[in-house]
Amino acid sequence: MTSIAMNYMYQALKLAKHAVHHDEVPVGAILVANEHIIAQTHNQCVVDQNSLHHAEMLAIHQGITHLQTPYLNECTLYVTLEPCPMCAAALAQARIGKLIFGAYDPKSGGIEHGPKIFDHSHHQPEIIGGVLEQECADLLIKFFKEKR
Amino acid sequence: MTSIAMNYMYQALKLAKHAVHHDEVPVGAILVANEHIIAQTHNQCVVDQNSLHHAEMLAIHQGITHLQTPYLNECTLYVTLEPCPMCAAALAQARIGKLIFGAYDPKSGGIEHGPKIFDHSHHQPEIIGGVLEQECADLLIKFFKEKR
Repeated sequence: MTSIAMNYMYQALKLAKHAVHHDEVPVGAILVANEHIIAQTHNQCVVDQNSLHHAEMLAIHQGITHLQTPYLNECTLYVTLEPCPMCAAALAQARIGKLIFGAYDPKSGGIEHGPKIFDHSHHQPEIIGGVLEQECADLLIKFFKEKR
Repeated sequence: MTSIAMNYMYQALKLAKHAVHHDEVPVGAILVANEHIIAQTHNQCVVDQNSLHHAEMLAIHQGITHLQTPYLNECTLYVTLEPCPMCAAALAQARIGKLIFGAYDPKSGGIEHGPKIFDHSHHQPEIIGGVLEQECADLLIKFFKEKR
């Protein structure tokens, strides 16, 4: 993992921390095209009262709007948690070029766990999991501990 | 299948036929809450230049906006084609009450085929497939034949 990539994940983590202030599950995402950040999002389900407004979905929509193209082959998504099946399948649908995620999600993940979306997908991006894994996981563990 | 339910699927089929005029893959959807139609959508990926704008995704968003709630437990979605993994997982995320679809999609479906989303989901709606199957499939077959 290059230091530039690590830096993007730190920025995604910062966005995740921001989500906590709004009582959102702390997941953040950064979408990068040609070394430019084109979307910075965090989970916004509570604020928007919309169960589909995960960080990844918002990032995909912002990326599509920004690039004015339905496909994101040239983009890399950095996200602090393993995407759920919906987000994973949306990333396949949008033909994401590269996916880098932080913590693994054995309960609700859709990449390495559950339906393993890319095992069934026509589109195969490069995928790297476990980047800043501990930091990303700790934030989530702390959030859910305080919720209880 | 009651005649009311068949009627909703006919309406979804009419929306699918409308999509063809815009060169969209002909898939239509109707979202019903308490016997009222709260969303009428069709595939809009080409017009919107957005790879996520499937009929089901648009219907979920319209339903959430209309009801001002993140969850659609009281709703039934009628859609002319077996939802893809993204739409199936989004329906799980939005906790759809009931899902009724027309044609089966062995190539890209996510309910009975591919990742079989609801086999891995915490949410289990009532699902009925194959309603007006032939009419829904014929429309798609005709569309793709003319495209070639």
